[in-house]
Amino acid sequence: MKVRALWYTAGVLHLLDQRALPGRVRVLRLRTLRSTADAIRTMAVRGAPSIGAAAAYGMVLGKREGRYTPAQAARLLGATRPTAHDLFVGIEAVRKAWVAGDEVEEAADAYRSRIVEECHQIGTAGAPLFATTRRVLTHCNAGALATVEWGTALAPLRVARQRGARLFVWVDETRPLLQGSRLTAWELAREHIPHAVIADNAAGHYLATGQVDAVIVGADRIARNGDFANKIGTYSKAVVARENGVPFYVAAPWSTFDVRRPNGKTIPVEERDPLEVSEIAGHRLTPKGSPSRNPAFDITPARYVTAFVTPAGVVRPRALARLLARHSAAG
Amino acid sequence: MKVRALWYTAGVLHLLDQRALPGRVRVLRLRTLRSTADAIRTMAVRGAPSIGAAAAYGMVLGKREGRYTPAQAARLLGATRPTAHDLFVGIEAVRKAWVAGDEVEEAADAYRSRIVEECHQIGTAGAPLFATTRRVLTHCNAGALATVEWGTALAPLRVARQRGARLFVWVDETRPLLQGSRLTAWELAREHIPHAVIADNAAGHYLATGQVDAVIVGADRIARNGDFANKIGTYSKAVVARENGVPFYVAAPWSTFDVRRPNGKTIPVEERDPLEVSEIAGHRLTPKGSPSRNPAFDITPARYVTAFVTPAGVVRPRALARLLARHSAAG
Repeated sequence: MKVRALWYTAGVLHLLDQRALPGRVRVLRLRTLRSTADAIRTMAVRGAPSIGAAAAYGMVLGKREGRYTPAQAARLLGATRPTAHDLFVGIEAVRKAWVAGDEVEEAADAYRSRIVEECHQIGTAGAPLFATTRRVLTHCNAGALATVEWGTALAPLRVARQRGARLFVWVDETRPLLQGSRLTAWELAREHIPHAVIADNAAGHYLATGQVDAVIVGADRIARNGDFANKIGTYSKAVVARENGVPFYVAAPWSTFDVRRPNGKTIPVEERDPLEVSEIAGHRLTPKGSPSRNPAFDITPARYVTAFVTPAGVVRPRALARLLARHSAAG
Repeated sequence: MKVRALWYTAGVLHLLDQRALPGRVRVLRLRTLRSTADAIRTMAVRGAPSIGAAAAYGMVLGKREGRYTPAQAARLLGATRPTAHDLFVGIEAVRKAWVAGDEVEEAADAYRSRIVEECHQIGTAGAPLFATTRRVLTHCNAGALATVEWGTALAPLRVARQRGARLFVWVDETRPLLQGSRLTAWELAREHIPHAVIADNAAGHYLATGQVDAVIVGADRIARNGDFANKIGTYSKAVVARENGVPFYVAAPWSTFDVRRPNGKTIPVEERDPLEVSEIAGHRLTPKGSPSRNPAFDITPARYVTAFVTPAGVVRPRALARLLARHSAAG
């Protein structure tokens, strides 16, 4: 019973509605570009690699509708969320095929398959890091839900487990949208991987008291120098991990690397609806007169990263640019 | 319309029920030691100085009931929460009077008045730190609700405002129990102090992007060397503040200082019900099969503290032991 975040058959994009989890397993059936864009914007599908794949199929649906030029379709889907680099890579993969007169379904299927394959490679490459590591902290959800299958941060843990590693995962709940307590916990519980959900505030306590052996997260966009955007709160965990000598890993497929961006300074950070902070499940948390702010991502400088786990292997930040150049030349 | 967390008249301890805020302003009327202990345990009253004052009156109620020895009463109230040092100071102040045959109401009233006076002194001592500071981050609630009146962390901000400082406060929501979004935001909104509530995860982002000029928090227990316990998440903010060169202040009355404890290593950290993490307002957040962990405090080493704001003035961690010795000798 593998988790699959999305799949496509005959004009219908199926999405596991990540807003309904873990309470309900609900599948959305999308037939239009616009409903796909809405699903991305409202985070029915989220996680950079899954967003990229959903957008690729959104392009397919847009072409089938016959109402959009390739550029229009790309623009509509590209306006949904600004931070994840994968969104633009997924759109571009299908736009090219569309303009060239190639089969767009094939292009989207190939994009999706490549993501899944790369996540499996990440798992294989990263698993040795967790062969003797016992207690791992992760933030947000960088599992199968975020990446179609396997996961980025969770892939090395899954492969390490298959190879016999005994792992325990600290799951940051990840306010405001609780991707940790709702989604990562759901994935881990399904596979009977020992874990505990904690308030984001508690991560520092466990890091400082020697109860975390490694931290691993995914990413939404990684600059050439290794600065990266990820779910809000990632930066603080990285700083506190380094302060305590705990290794901090970032796992991502190629589509997350923004090779033309020299560093993280100019990565756009999405600010979402303040209601995500001031309400939960329709229940008001803050007083009426209190405004909220809701940045969805933060930028972690490369100096806090022990290593990146890529489809081509584990690489230190200093060696990242060279690896990316080699990959771009090969690709 | 000053906020008062609690007041006592003729055998009745009145508590503003902090579990009901900000939705409802509800006053509990307590007539027994046991109901006072329950109110402390369930956090109807919370914040170290308010807990100390509530426990002092809990002793008064216990004496009136005529069912307890002073030692029994002290033990029952002392077993409610382990971390706040003030709890034991408040209990001891009344136990002594009880044993000596003095008026226990007078002892409790004196304890309460001293806390309020010290918090006002903290405000006066700390206000100059915020004369030119514009944007302040605070964690949890260290306002009037936590300290009977005035606040510890909020007192210097209140006095600075009275003196004309223009302040903006970033309010960490403070999961799991949301003392920031529920209580600090409520206090600030009442006084029209500009503020915004943020997810705890967002504090690092604002610290790293130059949008926080100072951090100030309260404390639950401070060791002689300046290591201190405070609401879970405080440690991470302190580490990230120092990483970004942002001053980090800790404000507390004398009752929070545990002068016989040389450092923070042995301060007991309360672990509370995991349901506080896995549910919110009766709404389940995590999957059924997912356990949670819920440490309520963390220990921040003194090296992350820029200065302590005490009733006797602002003092660097290195000078703290000397100040405490002087205060103990005087007291």
